[in-house]
Amino acid sequence: MTPDELAWRCAEVMWADDTASQKMGMVLNRVATGTATLSMPVRDDMTNGHGTAHGGFIFALADSAFAFACNSRNERTVAQACDIVFSAPAHQGDLLVAAATERHRFGRNGIYDVRVTCGDQIVAEFRGRSRAVGGAHIDC
Amino acid sequence: MTPDELAWRCAEVMWADDTASQKMGMVLNRVATGTATLSMPVRDDMTNGHGTAHGGFIFALADSAFAFACNSRNERTVAQACDIVFSAPAHQGDLLVAAATERHRFGRNGIYDVRVTCGDQIVAEFRGRSRAVGGAHIDC
Amino acid sequence: MTPDELAWRCAEVMWADDTASQKMGMVLNRVATGTATLSMPVRDDMTNGHGTAHGGFIFALADSAFAFACNSRNERTVAQACDIVFSAPAHQGDLLVAAATERHRFGRNGIYDVRVTCGDQIVAEFRGRSRAVGGAHIDC
Amino acid sequence: MTPDELAWRCAEVMWADDTASQKMGMVLNRVATGTATLSMPVRDDMTNGHGTAHGGFIFALADSAFAFACNSRNERTVAQACDIVFSAPAHQGDLLVAAATERHRFGRNGIYDVRVTCGDQIVAEFRGRSRAVGGAHIDC
Repeated sequence: MTPDELAWRCAEVMWADDTASQKMGMVLNRVATGTATLSMPVRDDMTNGHGTAHGGFIFALADSAFAFACNSRNERTVAQACDIVFSAPAHQGDLLVAAATERHRFGRNGIYDVRVTCGDQIVAEFRGRSRAVGGAHIDC
Repeated sequence: MTPDELAWRCAEVMWADDTASQKMGMVLNRVATGTATLSMPVRDDMTNGHGTAHGGFIFALADSAFAFACNSRNERTVAQACDIVFSAPAHQGDLLVAAATERHRFGRNGIYDVRVTCGDQIVAEFRGRSRAVGGAHIDC
Repeated sequence: MTPDELAWRCAEVMWADDTASQKMGMVLNRVATGTATLSMPVRDDMTNGHGTAHGGFIFALADSAFAFACNSRNERTVAQACDIVFSAPAHQGDLLVAAATERHRFGRNGIYDVRVTCGDQIVAEFRGRSRAVGGAHIDC
Repeated sequence: MTPDELAWRCAEVMWADDTASQKMGMVLNRVATGTATLSMPVRDDMTNGHGTAHGGFIFALADSAFAFACNSRNERTVAQACDIVFSAPAHQGDLLVAAATERHRFGRNGIYDVRVTCGDQIVAEFRGRSRAVGGAHIDC
């Protein structure tokens, strides 16, 4: 199994369990070692009365991309802390894409950057800090 | 109208429009000048297969409390950036409570702290940075 | 020894070693369990040509207050991550005061808030995340 | 004048005024549009008794790199907020290098990432949020 195949296998196991991401309508577009891309259309139940997406759903998409990226080496890893900067609103019907990349790993810690876009527009920049907690997703 | 009545009136206007917070099952428990408390039960569609809440929903609750607190003076105000530290997991059926308090206002900017709890347990600490964008919620 | 006496004893040991804080002209005003207050005058070598303090020195004062607060229980503890919001400039000759308070401790982790003021003016709001690394400052 | 020449001219004006960065022994290695690299040796007056650099000086180096990067387009720009994750200690005698890159600009706001290294070792990851305040560094 190559590292990227391993990343995909870990993602399948996580995804099967991740009711929340499924119910929000996320799609797992790509996973490889240290990286993951997910997309999600903004539904009407994710917006306020003006059709603007609630920041919680933008965060949730970024957070899921972060989770798949930081678990891609088959070490169970959790989010410790995250920050997000909102740079443009998202609207009902928009397809949001969150691309997570690994910035730095040290000891059991990791730093991941996630950019959330809608077409050419950057909607948010997210940074997550992870910590490996022991255990694996799959036996190999 | 007292400042706290004004805060409540602004919250009513915002709430009527806030489909997302309503659909997540949030309840607006308290609003006053610079502060707001919301609660939300963790539903099964907010969890992964092990019954643990997705961080996005914990963030969303904190973000809504932040929004009601920073808009409580009848100045339209948006979230610029937020950070969250997760200190304990939440589980299906937990009632989460997010209490937002104002830490500092300067110029058009504000800093708000939101603590998310489940009973005596602190689930997350959130800090939001807001910016007033002009305009009011209600005429007065 | 009371918890606050212990906090003071830990601070004395740390201070004796902390050449950097001493050379920046910091003074340790107060230490107790989970809290510390330090002050520092802004010297001309801490400013730019317009007499405004470099953000690094404002951060350094807050970071030192954070360090004394999070080490006040005689467990060796380090800074993992910090964020700072600058709300007003500081100037040459200003006496800055940084007051650190404990917000939350969970497992080996802690969250501390530090407010940096000059008189009535809030200059910066800092939040630090700590991690205990094992070992003690003093035998007791 | 090319954009990179403009960046360099802005940096020269800022540097001439930046007593603090000069006195900390920083050297401006490179400036171009949206990016800047500075270096600084860790002096003994920047450390504690064990020869480990105070986090304030690591932050200060990153903050200066951020400042030169976000002012490189001849628009006066200030730091609003910054966060830093410390991943490895720095020691007396180490030469620290901080490389700032532009991540996103929107309206008057910017997000810059700064990596602080010592040789191959990543010492810290810093993210700064800037805001243009009007005015220019040089007439052109």
